[in-house]
Amino acid sequence: MNNLVERLLQGDRRSAAKLITLIENDTPERKDILSQIYPHTGRAHVIGITGSPGAGKSSLVDELTTEIRSEGLKVGIIAVDPTSPFSGGALLGDRIRMQEHATDRGVFIRSMGTRGSLGGLAEATRDAIRVLDAFGCHVILVETVGVGQSELDIMHHAHTTLVVLTPQAGDHIQTIKAGIMEIADIFVINKADLDGTRKMVTDIEAMLDLSPLVDGWRPPVLTTIATDHSGIPELWAAIKKHRAWHKDNRTGSDRERVRRELAEIIQRHLSHQISRQLEKHYDHLVKKVAARQLDPYSAAMEIIKESLKGGLAQ
Amino acid sequence: MNNLVERLLQGDRRSAAKLITLIENDTPERKDILSQIYPHTGRAHVIGITGSPGAGKSSLVDELTTEIRSEGLKVGIIAVDPTSPFSGGALLGDRIRMQEHATDRGVFIRSMGTRGSLGGLAEATRDAIRVLDAFGCHVILVETVGVGQSELDIMHHAHTTLVVLTPQAGDHIQTIKAGIMEIADIFVINKADLDGTRKMVTDIEAMLDLSPLVDGWRPPVLTTIATDHSGIPELWAAIKKHRAWHKDNRTGSDRERVRRELAEIIQRHLSHQISRQLEKHYDHLVKKVAARQLDPYSAAMEIIKESLKGGLAQ
Repeated sequence: MNNLVERLLQGDRRSAAKLITLIENDTPERKDILSQIYPHTGRAHVIGITGSPGAGKSSLVDELTTEIRSEGLKVGIIAVDPTSPFSGGALLGDRIRMQEHATDRGVFIRSMGTRGSLGGLAEATRDAIRVLDAFGCHVILVETVGVGQSELDIMHHAHTTLVVLTPQAGDHIQTIKAGIMEIADIFVINKADLDGTRKMVTDIEAMLDLSPLVDGWRPPVLTTIATDHSGIPELWAAIKKHRAWHKDNRTGSDRERVRRELAEIIQRHLSHQISRQLEKHYDHLVKKVAARQLDPYSAAMEIIKESLKGGLAQ
Repeated sequence: MNNLVERLLQGDRRSAAKLITLIENDTPERKDILSQIYPHTGRAHVIGITGSPGAGKSSLVDELTTEIRSEGLKVGIIAVDPTSPFSGGALLGDRIRMQEHATDRGVFIRSMGTRGSLGGLAEATRDAIRVLDAFGCHVILVETVGVGQSELDIMHHAHTTLVVLTPQAGDHIQTIKAGIMEIADIFVINKADLDGTRKMVTDIEAMLDLSPLVDGWRPPVLTTIATDHSGIPELWAAIKKHRAWHKDNRTGSDRERVRRELAEIIQRHLSHQISRQLEKHYDHLVKKVAARQLDPYSAAMEIIKESLKGGLAQ
């Protein structure tokens, strides 16, 4: 495993792929791998791409990759599908990007599904981002299929979040409001040759007029037609602008991100301990609850009191 | 609130609706509500309905409801959409069931989305099931939109799980295998007038031949055409058969369910405490991790050691 990390730091692709698999499977080595990699991370700019299904996110990612590659930067792409049990590389087989970018050594592509990610998909994605960061990717694109809760969780790990919408497909302003509004750093109206584009831009701008700015950043609303690369250079410019802004304002959000991660690790660790304790020491309470002689909330509080007295951490 | 619970136990519909909303919003009263309701639960049979989008789950639920109502039993329907921010009743407005069952006092319909369920959608669903159980529903149908991780979590709260598939729509045997195989108590091939139905039944039966039986139950593979009620009486009969089997074999699974719930409550409680502690006492560690002088795993272990010594529960 030490070898794998060393080879990763030297830019070995196969080590990157293997390390991500080890992390996905939540193997015992995971903690050590991440401890070793961590000092070599923090350099990549992570771009999250989310939005309604059918909005053309994949094409957008492909075109954005072409644009970023034209500056000679190394790109990592992580395609996350919380509804799919598959991970690895297979899922992407049918996609344009495989033809365009598969032979490009400056692009690393990985898909992630729920199957391999026993420790939680969002956490596995975060750690896969770290591997690609240490691997030397300058930019990492993280794409999700839709806008469910899992997708929102995953977007927490991005520095710049693009919310991709189309004028059609029921992307009404009401739907956008819920949860998505808050996470967008840049709005992208893709398929902007379709009817309704102008109205959509106006609607979102009107919404933004009413929203408080976070540290002075107002999300721009851009239009693209990914299939013919139209609007992509402007999008990449806007991302770079946000990156610069982010660098000046990141201290607070970095700490917030660290706090969230620490909370997750602690919770995961404690939850293993709790399950073990429940099996070993609290069968009498479990039986009482199952027989409805005791309600689960009261039982839980009793266990917390008892366990922590005994030191749950050991 | 005591009044609400009392009225619920007397069969008051509005109290049921209000209590579910309080639970969804994770109000401080939640714990008390559930403690009070808990002794009055455990009587309803909970049927989970999951499967690929477009498999006709809603129609199936409608027809099953008609069938169950013909025996005079009271039915609760909970439609859960992990991808939707909406909850309440609005979402169901356009559905057939609203026309057919909306005026029937023996049917209670509720939809749940992510918006209102701050404490986790699966947990909110479990507690909504309890409310309808105490309300006097004999059968509770819990329907989800797809088969993602959230849907699987929700199915944990069902006694009998139906996995609904169609011969078309990419429901290949490979897809079915992942995660779904294990949770199905009954397979339903809906839209069974379509080509490929027989092959699908054969494929699933072949798969079942290779799967170990759990306590002697082999999931039957049934065919239905929900839109003309065909196969529905047979499905209801199979559910009743599974219910009888379940009653004889439930002790183990009941305890397993209690253990899972206790673990969830304990985790939720601890996670609140951890977040507070992180804000109050561990800013120096957060800063070190943000500056990459310390990795998150080592920091987390240090916090666990410290916090539990100090008694995290208080």
